[in-house]
Amino acid sequence: MLVFGGTGDLALHKLLPALYHLHRDGRLPADMRILAAARNVLNRAEYQALAERRCRAQVARSDFDNDTWASFAARLDYLAMDLSQSAEFGRLARFLGAHACNRGRIYYLATAPDLFEAIAEHLAIAGLAGSDTRIVLEKPIGRSLESAREINAAIGAVFSEPQVFRIDHYLGKETVQNLMALRFANALFEPIWRAGHIDHVQISVNETLGVENRGAYYDKAGAMRDMVQNHLLQLLCLVAMEAPVRFDAESVRNEKVKILEALKPIAGLDVHDKTVRGQYVAGKIGGQEVPAYYFEKHVDNDSDTETFVAIQAEIDNWRWAGVPFYLRTGKRMAKKCSEIVIQFKPVPHRLFEGSQANRLVISLQPEERITLQLMGKSPGKGMQLTPIELDLNLAQVFPQKRRWDAYERLLLDVIEGDSTLFMRRDEVEAAWAWIDPILKGWQDNYQDPRPYPAGRNGPEQANTLLELAGREWED
Amino acid sequence: MLVFGGTGDLALHKLLPALYHLHRDGRLPADMRILAAARNVLNRAEYQALAERRCRAQVARSDFDNDTWASFAARLDYLAMDLSQSAEFGRLARFLGAHACNRGRIYYLATAPDLFEAIAEHLAIAGLAGSDTRIVLEKPIGRSLESAREINAAIGAVFSEPQVFRIDHYLGKETVQNLMALRFANALFEPIWRAGHIDHVQISVNETLGVENRGAYYDKAGAMRDMVQNHLLQLLCLVAMEAPVRFDAESVRNEKVKILEALKPIAGLDVHDKTVRGQYVAGKIGGQEVPAYYFEKHVDNDSDTETFVAIQAEIDNWRWAGVPFYLRTGKRMAKKCSEIVIQFKPVPHRLFEGSQANRLVISLQPEERITLQLMGKSPGKGMQLTPIELDLNLAQVFPQKRRWDAYERLLLDVIEGDSTLFMRRDEVEAAWAWIDPILKGWQDNYQDPRPYPAGRNGPEQANTLLELAGREWED
Repeated sequence: MLVFGGTGDLALHKLLPALYHLHRDGRLPADMRILAAARNVLNRAEYQALAERRCRAQVARSDFDNDTWASFAARLDYLAMDLSQSAEFGRLARFLGAHACNRGRIYYLATAPDLFEAIAEHLAIAGLAGSDTRIVLEKPIGRSLESAREINAAIGAVFSEPQVFRIDHYLGKETVQNLMALRFANALFEPIWRAGHIDHVQISVNETLGVENRGAYYDKAGAMRDMVQNHLLQLLCLVAMEAPVRFDAESVRNEKVKILEALKPIAGLDVHDKTVRGQYVAGKIGGQEVPAYYFEKHVDNDSDTETFVAIQAEIDNWRWAGVPFYLRTGKRMAKKCSEIVIQFKPVPHRLFEGSQANRLVISLQPEERITLQLMGKSPGKGMQLTPIELDLNLAQVFPQKRRWDAYERLLLDVIEGDSTLFMRRDEVEAAWAWIDPILKGWQDNYQDPRPYPAGRNGPEQANTLLELAGREWED
Repeated sequence: MLVFGGTGDLALHKLLPALYHLHRDGRLPADMRILAAARNVLNRAEYQALAERRCRAQVARSDFDNDTWASFAARLDYLAMDLSQSAEFGRLARFLGAHACNRGRIYYLATAPDLFEAIAEHLAIAGLAGSDTRIVLEKPIGRSLESAREINAAIGAVFSEPQVFRIDHYLGKETVQNLMALRFANALFEPIWRAGHIDHVQISVNETLGVENRGAYYDKAGAMRDMVQNHLLQLLCLVAMEAPVRFDAESVRNEKVKILEALKPIAGLDVHDKTVRGQYVAGKIGGQEVPAYYFEKHVDNDSDTETFVAIQAEIDNWRWAGVPFYLRTGKRMAKKCSEIVIQFKPVPHRLFEGSQANRLVISLQPEERITLQLMGKSPGKGMQLTPIELDLNLAQVFPQKRRWDAYERLLLDVIEGDSTLFMRRDEVEAAWAWIDPILKGWQDNYQDPRPYPAGRNGPEQANTLLELAGREWED
């Protein structure tokens, strides 16, 4: 496995700890080696030391062990190279030539996305893109339908689609996969998983962090491209898709694409009515004063980039006609919380007082848990209802099992060549096709993002979006 | 409140402790008095002492308090009388006349059922059956449709139907009422609560006790009359009934009667195919040797009374056509366990390996809890399914609330005149109308009950009943 951008945060913070865990659990092929490549001038020992320092900080103390690390580090090598230079890949080829490789190579592009096309091309020129290789791309794939098509075409000119793994780590989360198990391994939910029985769906990905040291990238992307186009739409697909024919890559992704293509376009005046964009101003997070977005490092003082998006999406198909899917994501929100809320309709006829509608909450963060909110009888005289929660806390149900990080799961899938949980080319493009008109609507309206104080759940207009329909965000 | 049979087990073991609890919680009307009547020659103080001794043994130590008992005992009086003698009721009337009663009287018939008719008649003759009185009858009401009609007619000649409270204490249990809340206060279950989605229903009431000191009564009744005709059919009604128009006595009972009337008759050869009767022989319960039923006290050595019944019932209506309701009850079974199992159908198409069908288990004994068995994803690589239980343990969900005994709930309902949870005359008769042909079938076949060793869940034929359809009892 080659990790391009091997000194970046993604590689050091996510990929290497995940690989370390897989190594420790004996999940990696015995002869698998890992070559990190980046511009920084480091030798092998220096890179191993850097990796060890970062992994120690990242891995649970009980999981970190010096001997295990030593055997893991033996897999690890480093090559300093400029990824933008084609000639450097000749050097890479010679370096790799010195290390016999009997099995396929995996290229993990943990770099800035503007390098994707160049790297693919350089690999091809250097003769490193044989049919036994795989390439892993991190989001974002492009910043518009057009640019995504360009990247996909450039990648596609070198790698065939089954070689390409477009990663969305949300799909590697246990609760997200449990959502599929819940839907398709239980006869209980599927009959009511549709417009007649579901009032609406909420998908929220709220962070308390600001842009941290990603200002330069983020200010050009914004919440829509950074979060909605990928994570939120992927979650929406898993909630909304029909049962696939089989649980394999093509069947699952066929169903997801159908959802993306069924998304009702939001364009023109609808952009104003059905979307809210916001940008945080100074406020407090956990009692701490934090600055406005436009004062963050590497952010334009005059920036009109959104750090918050709320959208009322609809899916034009038989199952979901008329059911709003409320999407929301933001930085510097009140609470770190990623969740999917399936809000069922109230009972059609109220036999008892105080009945509230059922709700299924699938939490991804801060805890992975699934909660089914029902009504029960309060003990004692009469028939007083009371909300009861049937709770499935994954950490409690499987205490003996170490929780896999999403990246562990997904890296293993790449190694084994299973692309079920990765985005196919047409998925990415269908998502952009729906996102583009909204971005354009915002641009055409010349409307600045609504300000919201850090520590609040976005601008007031995001609440109004639901309140107009008598609904509210689950907070 | 008059408790006829005031020195019996029901009165001392159930009614007085329940009344004590209600008193302690301030739920009883301040001026309510309780007069126990029975043949035993006791004076008031002696009865109070007897009641105290029994209540102390019955009530949790933390609930029993001497001052509270003293104030409760002040409500308590006793009259020794022969309930079979009409003249004694004149004496009762004079006794009562000495105690002004501004509000209605409640007659609780905690006596042998063969006294019901006589007591009602005697009360009428003594002028004690005014329209402001209520009468509470314990099961069994009769031992056949004919005798039940006779009793109901005799009671009905004296008391109008709204004055009559036929108690079935199973209906006072929290989980049984939670079943109604679950069904009619949640939009989740009702759409799948029907033949298309439910494979079958099991209703089991398994006891480890033998006949104890009820041999004389039990040997004439048997499990069918003692348990199936009332408790099990009542539970079946609550599982199967349509949503009532309102949650009031007439609406709920109208729906229950409809179910009883829709029960597919079991007669003739069907009796052999769809029912199993058993009688326990010597065996072990919890490691202890216990004798055969026919060696129990007050039981005929040659008895062919059943101590176990299993029935495959069906309901001929739109909702339930083709869905078996398996009823089972027995004494000296392996485990004390009363529960209702709703077995859903498997998923129509198996996307994942190892999928098991969903199941909702409503446990009445030994613990009151509701468990929803779903399939989830086992953490880690791939999509391995694992059964998960969403568990609603009432004791844990409401730790602050003392659990009401079923009798507390039901006694308060009688005091307040709410007969929703009591059996209406036509219900009792419809239940007998379905039971009678089965009893007759057993008689006509001259088939003895199948023997089963104490400590086993009935005779093997009860398992075969389900196995023939590829099913099994939840044990």
